[in-house]
Amino acid sequence: MNQYQESVFLQGHIIDSLVLAKVLDLILMMGGTFDLEEVHIGKTREEPSRALIRIRTASKALLVDILKAIQPHGASVKQEADCRTEGAPADGVFPEDFYATTHLPTQIRFNGRWLDVDRIEMDLAILVNEEGSAAQTLSMGEVRRGDRVVVGREGVRVIPLQRPPERDVFGFMESQVSAERPHGHIIADIAARMRQLRERHRRGQPESKVLLAGGPAIIHAGGRDALAWLIEEGFVHILFCGNALAAHDMEADLYGTSLGYGLTAGRAIPHGHEHHLRTINRIRTIGSIEAAVTSGVIKQGIMAACVRRGIPVVMAGTIRDDGPLPGVITDSVRAQRAMRAAVPGVGLALLVASTLHAVATGNLLPATVPTVCVDVNPSVPTKLADRGSFQAVGLVMDAASFLSELAGLLGRTT
Amino acid sequence: MNQYQESVFLQGHIIDSLVLAKVLDLILMMGGTFDLEEVHIGKTREEPSRALIRIRTASKALLVDILKAIQPHGASVKQEADCRTEGAPADGVFPEDFYATTHLPTQIRFNGRWLDVDRIEMDLAILVNEEGSAAQTLSMGEVRRGDRVVVGREGVRVIPLQRPPERDVFGFMESQVSAERPHGHIIADIAARMRQLRERHRRGQPESKVLLAGGPAIIHAGGRDALAWLIEEGFVHILFCGNALAAHDMEADLYGTSLGYGLTAGRAIPHGHEHHLRTINRIRTIGSIEAAVTSGVIKQGIMAACVRRGIPVVMAGTIRDDGPLPGVITDSVRAQRAMRAAVPGVGLALLVASTLHAVATGNLLPATVPTVCVDVNPSVPTKLADRGSFQAVGLVMDAASFLSELAGLLGRTT
Amino acid sequence: MNQYQESVFLQGHIIDSLVLAKVLDLILMMGGTFDLEEVHIGKTREEPSRALIRIRTASKALLVDILKAIQPHGASVKQEADCRTEGAPADGVFPEDFYATTHLPTQIRFNGRWLDVDRIEMDLAILVNEEGSAAQTLSMGEVRRGDRVVVGREGVRVIPLQRPPERDVFGFMESQVSAERPHGHIIADIAARMRQLRERHRRGQPESKVLLAGGPAIIHAGGRDALAWLIEEGFVHILFCGNALAAHDMEADLYGTSLGYGLTAGRAIPHGHEHHLRTINRIRTIGSIEAAVTSGVIKQGIMAACVRRGIPVVMAGTIRDDGPLPGVITDSVRAQRAMRAAVPGVGLALLVASTLHAVATGNLLPATVPTVCVDVNPSVPTKLADRGSFQAVGLVMDAASFLSELAGLLGRTT
Amino acid sequence: MNQYQESVFLQGHIIDSLVLAKVLDLILMMGGTFDLEEVHIGKTREEPSRALIRIRTASKALLVDILKAIQPHGASVKQEADCRTEGAPADGVFPEDFYATTHLPTQIRFNGRWLDVDRIEMDLAILVNEEGSAAQTLSMGEVRRGDRVVVGREGVRVIPLQRPPERDVFGFMESQVSAERPHGHIIADIAARMRQLRERHRRGQPESKVLLAGGPAIIHAGGRDALAWLIEEGFVHILFCGNALAAHDMEADLYGTSLGYGLTAGRAIPHGHEHHLRTINRIRTIGSIEAAVTSGVIKQGIMAACVRRGIPVVMAGTIRDDGPLPGVITDSVRAQRAMRAAVPGVGLALLVASTLHAVATGNLLPATVPTVCVDVNPSVPTKLADRGSFQAVGLVMDAASFLSELAGLLGRTT
Repeated sequence: MNQYQESVFLQGHIIDSLVLAKVLDLILMMGGTFDLEEVHIGKTREEPSRALIRIRTASKALLVDILKAIQPHGASVKQEADCRTEGAPADGVFPEDFYATTHLPTQIRFNGRWLDVDRIEMDLAILVNEEGSAAQTLSMGEVRRGDRVVVGREGVRVIPLQRPPERDVFGFMESQVSAERPHGHIIADIAARMRQLRERHRRGQPESKVLLAGGPAIIHAGGRDALAWLIEEGFVHILFCGNALAAHDMEADLYGTSLGYGLTAGRAIPHGHEHHLRTINRIRTIGSIEAAVTSGVIKQGIMAACVRRGIPVVMAGTIRDDGPLPGVITDSVRAQRAMRAAVPGVGLALLVASTLHAVATGNLLPATVPTVCVDVNPSVPTKLADRGSFQAVGLVMDAASFLSELAGLLGRTT
Repeated sequence: MNQYQESVFLQGHIIDSLVLAKVLDLILMMGGTFDLEEVHIGKTREEPSRALIRIRTASKALLVDILKAIQPHGASVKQEADCRTEGAPADGVFPEDFYATTHLPTQIRFNGRWLDVDRIEMDLAILVNEEGSAAQTLSMGEVRRGDRVVVGREGVRVIPLQRPPERDVFGFMESQVSAERPHGHIIADIAARMRQLRERHRRGQPESKVLLAGGPAIIHAGGRDALAWLIEEGFVHILFCGNALAAHDMEADLYGTSLGYGLTAGRAIPHGHEHHLRTINRIRTIGSIEAAVTSGVIKQGIMAACVRRGIPVVMAGTIRDDGPLPGVITDSVRAQRAMRAAVPGVGLALLVASTLHAVATGNLLPATVPTVCVDVNPSVPTKLADRGSFQAVGLVMDAASFLSELAGLLGRTT
Repeated sequence: MNQYQESVFLQGHIIDSLVLAKVLDLILMMGGTFDLEEVHIGKTREEPSRALIRIRTASKALLVDILKAIQPHGASVKQEADCRTEGAPADGVFPEDFYATTHLPTQIRFNGRWLDVDRIEMDLAILVNEEGSAAQTLSMGEVRRGDRVVVGREGVRVIPLQRPPERDVFGFMESQVSAERPHGHIIADIAARMRQLRERHRRGQPESKVLLAGGPAIIHAGGRDALAWLIEEGFVHILFCGNALAAHDMEADLYGTSLGYGLTAGRAIPHGHEHHLRTINRIRTIGSIEAAVTSGVIKQGIMAACVRRGIPVVMAGTIRDDGPLPGVITDSVRAQRAMRAAVPGVGLALLVASTLHAVATGNLLPATVPTVCVDVNPSVPTKLADRGSFQAVGLVMDAASFLSELAGLLGRTT
Repeated sequence: MNQYQESVFLQGHIIDSLVLAKVLDLILMMGGTFDLEEVHIGKTREEPSRALIRIRTASKALLVDILKAIQPHGASVKQEADCRTEGAPADGVFPEDFYATTHLPTQIRFNGRWLDVDRIEMDLAILVNEEGSAAQTLSMGEVRRGDRVVVGREGVRVIPLQRPPERDVFGFMESQVSAERPHGHIIADIAARMRQLRERHRRGQPESKVLLAGGPAIIHAGGRDALAWLIEEGFVHILFCGNALAAHDMEADLYGTSLGYGLTAGRAIPHGHEHHLRTINRIRTIGSIEAAVTSGVIKQGIMAACVRRGIPVVMAGTIRDDGPLPGVITDSVRAQRAMRAAVPGVGLALLVASTLHAVATGNLLPATVPTVCVDVNPSVPTKLADRGSFQAVGLVMDAASFLSELAGLLGRTT
């Protein structure tokens, strides 16, 4: 009675990456059945595997649902067809049936040729250029009336990730989020990777930048000096943060406090929150963080290191902000755009002590970028690890301890 | 040798509210000594207490620091002087020494008269109008060159909060943040207050609005119907939220899912995150949430209830947002301004399952507004309870259970 | 150069349960290579799959390590041999090389026959009886000098779990631990299962008991009445708890408080912790909980329901206990033994608001018993879900809300 | 109409310690009124304050309730009377109306003289010796039929704590539990105190011992070496732990793993949980931890350091334990007794990464012992800080980072 059927191909590291298991699981879960018409399993890590699966269902609708569900795992229907496109009906609006991207490497078939989708990122649409020679992702806010947008699922394929060849922490199958695992070796693996990336970055090699997205707890908990050192020493190449991290960093320089807690004197200074406001007011008077650093008003810390090393900083505003500081992008769509523009070239992302920045940055990163999420609250790393790539590693620890240990392994002496 | 001295007055419910204890504690902690020149302790809850304290220190600087530290607790120097003001040096910049507000009721002395500071809120400055007849708070972004801003601390006094006369949950001395306390009576007290406020609101009485600031976990965890009911029944009068809550609410209406989890069918629908994007795209096509509701596209839920009841909704954007929906204020400064404008008249604030909105809203609320913070993560209520007023109550529980129990107590049947 | 080799069989639901993927992954991770000599993948949920894998390594030691690592996933070496046994060297001590069990169904080959290992549980040894006709697990404390204990890994096989045929919440592949998922359908699935189990239990069918292991937060948070109702109505058949839950339950009956918080009056009663002590002292005077209930001193609540319904209660002592109550097993080894004795016949385990009881009970349960772990702290369900079976479901919510919703779905009216 | 009245005295640091405020607050909260007949407030930290309060109520019962509620805060009724005693009715049972202790310094009046209660600890009874010349606390399990136990509240007084004279972290008024505060200065204060205590301990001075109660996460997270160093260097003098910490510590020595995670190799070793079991089995074969260390089987780590330095270790069993190890006290009442016996002489308690041990140890400590609670989960320090003494400090951070930083400040080089 399961009279509706379709054959799909799966290809790549489908055993390694659990893709075959997940796809078969989904088919059964949703109420379909399958025949495995052909299975070739690669005998080495390099050799890809291949499966041809015939799906059978009792209704046309269920077949469509199943195809929709398994397509993000890399299953493409057997008979290859071009993808379909449609013009956007208005500025800022996708065609009704737009294809929504995953963060995995993706290709579309157009005029009989498979094109790589550029700047892959999750939850966007795919734009095909006028000549039909190139494809890239596009956010809802950026689409312009008439833009040719991929619709439906035909002619789109997703390539499952390959397990990275190095056997470091980024290659584990199991989730890494636990307060009960030894942090030492994870941080050691991160340090080793950062050392390599610094070398590669100095040689101008691609995908060699280290991005750090962080929250103000870095300052409160005492991780400011370690992070400033990492930046000064060339281990971090892009910084995403908010008004608070920047303000508390400079407050520490001007007043020696953070949120009213003395960082060196070691005592709470009553009503020290004033210092935070006065710091912001001071920088607004000067006009920019750059001017505050170059004029010598701000001497030490994260912002000073970024200015001195020419590190790009994207500061995004939120409704919690005092001030804000000059340079903060208060519009969230513009801030997102600035973050997106900074992502290409990133070879490692460290998301430290900020749920907002961790999730926002995680959304912008392709699944191929190794990502570490550090938070004392386990729910943040869990959220990121749920992204389902081998490359997301969660560490349940406080930001200051993480940054200090990392900097120590990279040669900092205190 | 403690030759520097100053006498300060404390007045009001200084025993009840621990103010006297805190002030004496601060003086000793910081290295000063004191004589209690006069103490009158009110013998009833209504009768205020009064203390005159002579502070002695070994240095002028320490005396200034101590006065700075105890002033937010309501201590005003004995010899009354007018406050000092200075013109703002530029648009968006306060005078260097501006007085930074607390969220407690505050008065300034100007031309020999004590003026109430209007729209009190923490971390702002105080603007005196041209005639010197009125004072109000002012954010850094709003100040214009030449505005007369209070500087220093003289002539400013803060009035400690009075314990509320009703003996409900808002009147407890101890912190209320605990997963180990019975929630039942706390929610009962909130319900009782909401019933009163609805009555008062219907009669057009002041301070009778209920503000709810919430995050998308309300939808994910299954609290959507209860919240929609509370709005429909007139128990909630203002909604603060982000793009995500609104989108997931309408996704639930269009697709029956939230973040890809079927809400009624009870099953995860693979890659259901698409629904979220398609919902946003659909509303962008229609042009506004209002139009989507009035045209019948969106039939049920929180947004539908707000549109039908004419409830103002402030939606603030963040860098995590997809879309965003029409109506989302993407600029954080403008969003903050819209939230601030909605606060006057609020008699109860419910901050549910959103760290960002809870903290941002908490920052805007005077200490006099009873506030409840509900989150399954204890760090959020702790943050709010740290605000130091009797009125902040923290509940460690999931949003859906809270809203369902609350609605049940207010008469909802399921 | 990978000259050492061994062929292993994998059999059962090895795709469904990710077993094949995990085994191949482990081989590669650890530095080996493999050939798939034969793969047969079942085309339906019922038909098992089968794989024959030839493992190659560069050293004998690595080959042994890999076999050790993959054996718990069900891989058994091709040429079948009997398991080896050795006599225990002393009371309470296993032979040096004892086989340590997993919580998956396990068989040993003895005298050419495969024997099921009885009472499977993780981290025990396997005892073969004198006749060599039966095998069962054995804890370290129970072993007696000379007992015949399985050593090494040969002749032992572990059977991967089959996905349960019902498509309820227990059949999902992904981890279920999240505060951001709708709880409603999960609780509905649990309720449905409990309704079935009550029916089966009434008919005397096997594996039909519901075990609840709970902590005192059930009482503090207000879940006492719901749990008592569940017991009275026949939905719960065994209770594991500690001194605190029992004492607070009876304190609520005698004084209307729990930890000094009034449960009905809705107010904190200062120094109410006394009530807890007086309750324990009172029961010690009476001599037993049973006598307190039958004599009418204790009238309502969880303990009263257990006594009236004849529900076995295992109360285990800890170093936190006041008293303790009569009936508390203060010796942890004896308490563990009592818990272990109660496990056979359990068809559903609810672990509610107690890290200690959740982990201790989880350790005793075979992987085949569907298990739900409820805690407001996500780390507890995470720990349990890490057990790696389909059957562990985590719910991040407070105990009272969980029990109330569950009881409501099962017909309780309030 | 408030015709029932009683006068009570409050004496000591009643302003400093908020005692006066709390007492007045309680009287009003519970429905009474008061007159302050006399208030003398000490003008220096050394000079105690004094208040005479006349309480009035509308009913006799309420007056009794209020006296009961304020007594633990140090309020004693004006007209001094001897305490009343009663003989225990049976072994293990207190007289019905026994006085339940707080953890504050306490005195009883007997034959007209005030006697200090020895070994004060919360939730016990007070035993008066036969001669009526001495009083000490007594647990429910220890009482013997006929023992003279204090009943009622008359003639019992509690002395509010004095703020410690040093201005370190233990002297702060506000709760110290926050992940957002700089840990550095808190750890520095702890280190300073430990340096002093080591010196005092070497000189044989009283109250100079450092007690550490810890959980196995110390090992998992990588804090083993730091703790072993602290013990070797004489900074820790008593260890409370469970089976798991000891087993994982020795597993690390024998196998280089903890819970199956390689601590040095930096890789997860599949099914490494076996190592844990084999370690326990090995020590059981040897017979004791001491023998394992002295025979050279166990060479490094926490247990080795304790044996070598002659540090007393109290290991308490739980129902989660495998084995357990020889030396584990499996009976919780006996374990509690052993812990209690070790407490006298303790001048600092560090409760690290174990809810069970933190709470159990906290219950045994007088309020006068400075206590630090470290856990990555904020609910544990919160629980301890709720004990209401100045001396409880909470740190939200992982155990390994805490111990490493602490050891670093005390001179350890890595």
